[in-house]
Amino acid sequence: MKKERSVINLPNRTITRLSLYYQFLSQILHTKKFISSKELSQHLGFTSSTIRKDLAFFGQFGTSGKGYEISKLYKNLEKILGIEKEWNVIVIGCGNLGAALLKYPRFKKLRFNIIAGFDISKKIVGKKINDIKIYHLNSLKNFVKRNKVDIAVISVPQEAAKSTIDYAVSCGVKGILNFTPTTVNIPSDKCKILKIDLTIEFLKLACLLSNKRYDNTKK
Amino acid sequence: MKKERSVINLPNRTITRLSLYYQFLSQILHTKKFISSKELSQHLGFTSSTIRKDLAFFGQFGTSGKGYEISKLYKNLEKILGIEKEWNVIVIGCGNLGAALLKYPRFKKLRFNIIAGFDISKKIVGKKINDIKIYHLNSLKNFVKRNKVDIAVISVPQEAAKSTIDYAVSCGVKGILNFTPTTVNIPSDKCKILKIDLTIEFLKLACLLSNKRYDNTKK
Repeated sequence: MKKERSVINLPNRTITRLSLYYQFLSQILHTKKFISSKELSQHLGFTSSTIRKDLAFFGQFGTSGKGYEISKLYKNLEKILGIEKEWNVIVIGCGNLGAALLKYPRFKKLRFNIIAGFDISKKIVGKKINDIKIYHLNSLKNFVKRNKVDIAVISVPQEAAKSTIDYAVSCGVKGILNFTPTTVNIPSDKCKILKIDLTIEFLKLACLLSNKRYDNTKK
Repeated sequence: MKKERSVINLPNRTITRLSLYYQFLSQILHTKKFISSKELSQHLGFTSSTIRKDLAFFGQFGTSGKGYEISKLYKNLEKILGIEKEWNVIVIGCGNLGAALLKYPRFKKLRFNIIAGFDISKKIVGKKINDIKIYHLNSLKNFVKRNKVDIAVISVPQEAAKSTIDYAVSCGVKGILNFTPTTVNIPSDKCKILKIDLTIEFLKLACLLSNKRYDNTKK
């Protein structure tokens, strides 16, 4: 009987875990041959049993006493996640955060190639950051027509976020990583948008640190 | 009967949702008076019923036809999350990403005050970025003794991550936001560490875009 296991029907948190396994393996790929679920657990903070279950679901089983063969598991996770190819990324908004992303060394390792930046400031447009050319935003439509653009990073000021995202979608961008706090409702068949909010982890850590018990009987 | 509702025993994803509600409300705090679970749902992507359940768990109920009173809900979420105070933050590693964080305008709004930066590069130490002084890392111990430091952001190069985190903990830092991909095992009673990995969202988006069905019968 043929069984299909679809990653896209998995809960978001399972995809997150698979991404974390993959990302961790990318770091140790050439340093060792095998890794056990216990070692993965120590590095990633999930239980060994969660890790074994996740991987067994996709037909990945470790060898008793040795664990998983790293290079094989890495290749298979790549297939499971459907990310075997190179991804062309553009960065829209090349101010402080955008410029830091243009210089971020780890994207290339995971085959996210930043091919261009876009901005509207005269101070930046026409320059290069980390050898990546910054174009004026009004040339985006033409650029998307002539180049394969997989993902656009949105790192513009908050007040420009909605119009910039609408414009990028109208230019044919199909995947967006939104670094602004603005939420935009775009049908997911038109463009897939994920949001990264740097402040959320700060709030979560503050919550853990405050370690406060909330008593809802005291109003 | 007295019921205690402890936020610290909640699953991580519930704390994430509560943080997202709080963060979203901080943006609309002075623009309107009421918000319904339906509107929250449209902005945040969770179902109305999830939102209502989350908030009812902490004794927060909307008024029929009107929804939740924003300023009240905001204040209460602050209490629930235990984050009513100001948080003093330092940034260790003030290169590209660190410098962008020093300039990030939204931290202050949520009362995360960056009070100092630390680095080892002669080019940066002694300077100011966004009016925040950058000290040499070897003055960290003294600084932590003399100032209230709640959270240290680690944005050093990957190869320096482990030693820097160990050093920060030895200096008495109790909360760390680790922007490097390195995982460090520190007992959580000594220091609480959360990791922010910018590449994980890229991998997740790539996975969504590839939209690939994984057939585990084909090996």
